[in-house]
Amino acid sequence: MARDGVDLLLLTTEADIRWFSGFLTAFWQSPTRPWFLLVPAGGLPIAVIPTIGETCMARTWVRDIRTWSSPDLVDDGVGLLVETIREIAGRGVMSGNVGSVRIGVPMGAGTHVRMPLAELERLRAALPGGEWRDASPTLNALRAIKSEREIAKIRHVCLAASRAFAALPDIVAAGMRDIEAFRAFTIRCLEEGVDDVAYLVGAAGRGGYDDIISPPSGRALAAGDVLILDTGCMHDGYFCDFDRNWAIGAVDAAAHDAYRVAWEATEAGLAAARPGVRCDELFATMDRVMAPHAIDASGGVGRSGHGLGMQLTEPPSLMAGERTALRPGMVMTLEPGFAFAPGKVMVHEENIVITEDGCELLSERAAPELPVIGV
Amino acid sequence: MARDGVDLLLLTTEADIRWFSGFLTAFWQSPTRPWFLLVPAGGLPIAVIPTIGETCMARTWVRDIRTWSSPDLVDDGVGLLVETIREIAGRGVMSGNVGSVRIGVPMGAGTHVRMPLAELERLRAALPGGEWRDASPTLNALRAIKSEREIAKIRHVCLAASRAFAALPDIVAAGMRDIEAFRAFTIRCLEEGVDDVAYLVGAAGRGGYDDIISPPSGRALAAGDVLILDTGCMHDGYFCDFDRNWAIGAVDAAAHDAYRVAWEATEAGLAAARPGVRCDELFATMDRVMAPHAIDASGGVGRSGHGLGMQLTEPPSLMAGERTALRPGMVMTLEPGFAFAPGKVMVHEENIVITEDGCELLSERAAPELPVIGV
Repeated sequence: MARDGVDLLLLTTEADIRWFSGFLTAFWQSPTRPWFLLVPAGGLPIAVIPTIGETCMARTWVRDIRTWSSPDLVDDGVGLLVETIREIAGRGVMSGNVGSVRIGVPMGAGTHVRMPLAELERLRAALPGGEWRDASPTLNALRAIKSEREIAKIRHVCLAASRAFAALPDIVAAGMRDIEAFRAFTIRCLEEGVDDVAYLVGAAGRGGYDDIISPPSGRALAAGDVLILDTGCMHDGYFCDFDRNWAIGAVDAAAHDAYRVAWEATEAGLAAARPGVRCDELFATMDRVMAPHAIDASGGVGRSGHGLGMQLTEPPSLMAGERTALRPGMVMTLEPGFAFAPGKVMVHEENIVITEDGCELLSERAAPELPVIGV
Repeated sequence: MARDGVDLLLLTTEADIRWFSGFLTAFWQSPTRPWFLLVPAGGLPIAVIPTIGETCMARTWVRDIRTWSSPDLVDDGVGLLVETIREIAGRGVMSGNVGSVRIGVPMGAGTHVRMPLAELERLRAALPGGEWRDASPTLNALRAIKSEREIAKIRHVCLAASRAFAALPDIVAAGMRDIEAFRAFTIRCLEEGVDDVAYLVGAAGRGGYDDIISPPSGRALAAGDVLILDTGCMHDGYFCDFDRNWAIGAVDAAAHDAYRVAWEATEAGLAAARPGVRCDELFATMDRVMAPHAIDASGGVGRSGHGLGMQLTEPPSLMAGERTALRPGMVMTLEPGFAFAPGKVMVHEENIVITEDGCELLSERAAPELPVIGV
């Protein structure tokens, strides 16, 4: 923070606040109340939060917890926040005085400020000499490197989801509506020990699927379909994020071929991923395998993988132009995908952690040939 | 919009975009990409979205869909957004020209702008004469009144969750760890037909619970505990939000008494909720029942209910000072709670819809006496 010229960080989102504090709760689902964590340079974090969160925050390592009864129609926390920022500035841990306090807020790709815009403007007006700086580069660099304990949590949820995927041929069959297949898979993930199936998308289509982010349609799975499920299950606040494909009975050879290409692209990615390799290089490595077979590279996803942790998708992206180099402790998805025919996409995904000299799979490796669910 | 002096709405969040478009996807879990919906006064909505969402958006009633390949390290959508806003302004559906375009963005309580702050500032700079106005009052008024089809979806998920709650004594017992009770309840909700258990919190403590938003601790349920579970399950993109309490075997009489008080407070709320009654009046009605028994009203929650729909919690709040009047079609929670002893809170919750002459329960009414799970 000193190097970046930031006197304090102002954090407002679930992942940023949890990363510094350990504050874990499902209550973020409610958009009603703002939550704030202040991280002073050279000082301990201060939580400025609604009263309803006081007990939960007190279970973390944060000792300085300031609360207000929220919702408050007149001042929903900004007054207390301003007062706290001024107090921090007055301690002399800052480079300057209140008038020139330099406040780091994540402003870069993939971020947002989780407070009402009118309140953010009120906050800025109350700190007229404040300098607002983008804390995204600092936070991205910090959060990208996972500790052994973080990696263990991600490994745990990857393995539980892997077991659920392995069981899929036993719980899904032709004739089952896609929404029922989603439900059966979700239940199996819970039975395998995940805390929550926070993300599940998928698709099925004759000879291949197109759009994988639409919700299930109610259509029945049929012989000849290619089915994909892509899940972000959670354990103790950490995500996995990977997918699996299946053939329902006999499917077109083109789908089998496309599966093999995506599997080989993933193999190339696994072989190449190591410290020092840049994200654009790893992207290119996988892309080279798919390009001869693709009518459209990346399958509309725009990238071939990304960071993974407290969020389903984190920086950096594996894509052209992204020059961030891999470092040990980064947890990443490898997610090569391509359109192999008009309206037909094949996407594979695995989760890995970068080690000192390569990478290690966290998910159980997908089968090299498209698995078939009997009909 | 004409009345409010707004030429177009700029929407960035899941619920706002879905309310106007019908765009339903789990993909919002990924924070990587921004999504935009523009709603011109007198014109049809225009989606400005990442390519990955094009097929899903094309299934909605939105016909004008503009996409860019996201993520894009140089321009992640703002260029296309600016171009589209300028085009709308040029159509002459606006009151003025591009230089004075009046852009409505939700800025009020419970909202945020879901795009990077740096990009929002770039957008503002690209529209130098733009007037930015708070669209929250308009959107809150629109979204608060649910259609019959919306009410049917919420009723469906309320009844499924009611059946899961009713089954709890059969699936939970003393000796079971709280995290396993959460998991068993989640699975039961799915078996009863919900699409997703997007929100589940709860607590158990000897003679009463304190903090209901912390995650399960791993502690085993024991005779003498009061257990609460509070869930926001989903069906077709709509939430329920209510809780239930149980005694594990014999518990202190104080907990039974507190349960009865909260139940009577809910009864008073059910009897009072009708069109024309203000939120602060309904709050006071429930508060009067609890006040003689409370060492701390509202149990730290800060209110006794709220709107419900595409979000777990929506405006308006049932609280002092909230003068919004109930109207037919509003779906609300009644959520009276109070501390009946130091560190012991009792919270009840039901979901209702305001009708022409009163209200109708959407959740199955809780039992008038604290249900006991045998040990």
